[in-house]
Amino acid sequence: MESKKPSRRKFLKGGAEAAVAGLAVGAIGSASAQTVAPDAHPQKSLKDLVAYGERSRFVTSVRVPVEERESPDQFGLTFHVLTPLQDSVGMITPSSLHFVGTHRGSIVPDIDPKEHRLMIHGMVDRPLEFTMEELRRFPSISRVHFLECLGNRSRPEYKTVQETTGLTSCSEWTGVPLSLLLKEVGVQKGASWVVSEGSEEVKGAGSIRLAKAMDDCIVAYGQNGEPLRPQQGFPIRLLVPGFEGIYNTKWLRRIKVVDRYYMTYNDYGHISKDEEVAALTFQWGPKSVITFPSGGQRLPGHGFYQITGLAWSGGGAVRKVEISTDAGATWKDAEIQGPVHPKAHTRFRFDWKWEGQECVLQSRCIDELGQVQPSKAEVAKVFKQPANYYHDHGVPGSDNTVQPWRVASDGSVHNGLA
Amino acid sequence: MESKKPSRRKFLKGGAEAAVAGLAVGAIGSASAQTVAPDAHPQKSLKDLVAYGERSRFVTSVRVPVEERESPDQFGLTFHVLTPLQDSVGMITPSSLHFVGTHRGSIVPDIDPKEHRLMIHGMVDRPLEFTMEELRRFPSISRVHFLECLGNRSRPEYKTVQETTGLTSCSEWTGVPLSLLLKEVGVQKGASWVVSEGSEEVKGAGSIRLAKAMDDCIVAYGQNGEPLRPQQGFPIRLLVPGFEGIYNTKWLRRIKVVDRYYMTYNDYGHISKDEEVAALTFQWGPKSVITFPSGGQRLPGHGFYQITGLAWSGGGAVRKVEISTDAGATWKDAEIQGPVHPKAHTRFRFDWKWEGQECVLQSRCIDELGQVQPSKAEVAKVFKQPANYYHDHGVPGSDNTVQPWRVASDGSVHNGLA
Repeated sequence: MESKKPSRRKFLKGGAEAAVAGLAVGAIGSASAQTVAPDAHPQKSLKDLVAYGERSRFVTSVRVPVEERESPDQFGLTFHVLTPLQDSVGMITPSSLHFVGTHRGSIVPDIDPKEHRLMIHGMVDRPLEFTMEELRRFPSISRVHFLECLGNRSRPEYKTVQETTGLTSCSEWTGVPLSLLLKEVGVQKGASWVVSEGSEEVKGAGSIRLAKAMDDCIVAYGQNGEPLRPQQGFPIRLLVPGFEGIYNTKWLRRIKVVDRYYMTYNDYGHISKDEEVAALTFQWGPKSVITFPSGGQRLPGHGFYQITGLAWSGGGAVRKVEISTDAGATWKDAEIQGPVHPKAHTRFRFDWKWEGQECVLQSRCIDELGQVQPSKAEVAKVFKQPANYYHDHGVPGSDNTVQPWRVASDGSVHNGLA
Repeated sequence: MESKKPSRRKFLKGGAEAAVAGLAVGAIGSASAQTVAPDAHPQKSLKDLVAYGERSRFVTSVRVPVEERESPDQFGLTFHVLTPLQDSVGMITPSSLHFVGTHRGSIVPDIDPKEHRLMIHGMVDRPLEFTMEELRRFPSISRVHFLECLGNRSRPEYKTVQETTGLTSCSEWTGVPLSLLLKEVGVQKGASWVVSEGSEEVKGAGSIRLAKAMDDCIVAYGQNGEPLRPQQGFPIRLLVPGFEGIYNTKWLRRIKVVDRYYMTYNDYGHISKDEEVAALTFQWGPKSVITFPSGGQRLPGHGFYQITGLAWSGGGAVRKVEISTDAGATWKDAEIQGPVHPKAHTRFRFDWKWEGQECVLQSRCIDELGQVQPSKAEVAKVFKQPANYYHDHGVPGSDNTVQPWRVASDGSVHNGLA
């Protein structure tokens, strides 16, 4: 395989020629909001790395606490941790980088699965308590689904996509269909709601309609091919596909079948006491975000770029993603990476040539129900508010509005809400 | 959410009643070939776990070196590491548990991506050298694909599915289509093969036909949503979907376009020098294995079990998986977990009632080309050998034969080849 090694200079010249074909090959800047020094992950010996491999010491993408973006000194009992979406590729979020919703407790429960039980009771014929080994005896399913905290919303002062949108992640979940467990205990006539309770200090709970519980919910013990991570509810969590994160009860220990909507500790005023309104605000609408180029990154020069990002919807599969590179004047279809999994992060890509102009990049998701992701201005109009009304000023429920990124003439990228 | 907590005894009684419906709820034994003590992974403080989460200290599933199953004291320069398939769920293998093929070198290359280059040269119009940042500028794709070492074959003396079949794993890979890079450099007329070379001590290389290179190969930089792991080729590897692992060159540094098949260091006699024969033995046939119940595990009692496992094929998507619970006398369709990704691990499941009889469990995969996974006896017949001929006695190429598991009357599970 002998070959004269051409000089670097010649290659760069070759690259310049290739640019004529539309592909300008050059260095690209990708600034992460937060990095740790390379030596924070010193490479272990080969033998140590046999049992359970680690990432390269040159890979420094990390989660950051929500509190840090607002008040770096605070690191209290209640916190959220943001996924570094600016570094994401594909649809799967590495379990180590999955966002974390609040624990509302001083520590992540350190549960011995041998001691853990799931109780299902209430309006059932046969109340039962399951060991983890018993749950693993049941028929199981695996599904790729996103999770998203209802607090995942952009504000003008947030700089990066990790800050604006990092409270969503996507995993392949494995577990027992909740419907199967409910059939096992025998749901009684008149039952209409299901309350799930976790094992953390405050026993975080959530209420979902029986119809949803019998549809596609999973008592999950597996995440991305291995047991759930402690921060995602080890040994079991409830998975309520498409619903706000808080209903996906972690460290699940109890399910009660009831005949009415139960207010719980987790409701802290973000949803209405009224059953009908509460039900309306459970499910995520169609949503998307451009992860490259995004806030804090920088385009190093004119030429070809592939815009890429993630789209998802609580209403089912992503049908279409549209991209605007001119502040919303025109929209064009992005390529969708298939096979598309319903209620899952879906990677989209859009080839683009930047010629140095100032511009605003936006993506919007259309789901299989035909729902279209709205802009903040459109939502403000619905609520009869000024256009700079940012949807998190007292409106119940989640924010699925379009995230604009402004590219300055020097290639730097900024939050378009600012 | 008040409720009288019923006693454990009552629940077990409830469980016994539920068994009438076909679901005997009881403890299940799952013996892993190798575990580490729980305190080997002490739980870190909450703050330490913010940046990059870890698994529970109660989760102890680990990879083991091939050498250990044969000669535990050997741990040399050349080794393979086996994925614990007995603990797998879903289709994704956690990157930390991905199998490792030999490095043929003393250490995993510790590559600074800023210093790494990919050179593409040979019979091309514009030889080019790409930085990692330049590669990331190109349009990318993500695909879920299995990888499997050509040495992944069962022997009668292997006890567990980790030992018999653990040299296969499945990830979501992200990178640049090789076809795009080849178009960028301009492949010259008369070129017919592509040689890829890695950065490890021996510069492991492989030859693939140009037609395959232009079809579905990827220069991959992403694995399961983050950069490739060092043991899987950080910062880039070649992905040759459906082909034996050795062609998926890790730590990729050079691609040479040539006009004939090149023998390389990696060929060490396992493929023919003859171009036509060599081409025939590259691609994996349809294959599958039952991961539960599998060797070393134990059924704790009579009743319902869900047989589950993985199927895949180098020929495309898995179309069907059939299960036999009676040593091959009859076969029934398993359920397939969709959406099915082509050339990817595909989870199958089969509901089964064990009544204490001795029996042999087998799975076989039929792919979208209509290819059927053969038994060892069927392969022996083709090669005019006795039925106990185990396909690794001098036959070139990979082994995709059916793995039988024998369930003894005490519920213990054994390698059916023994």
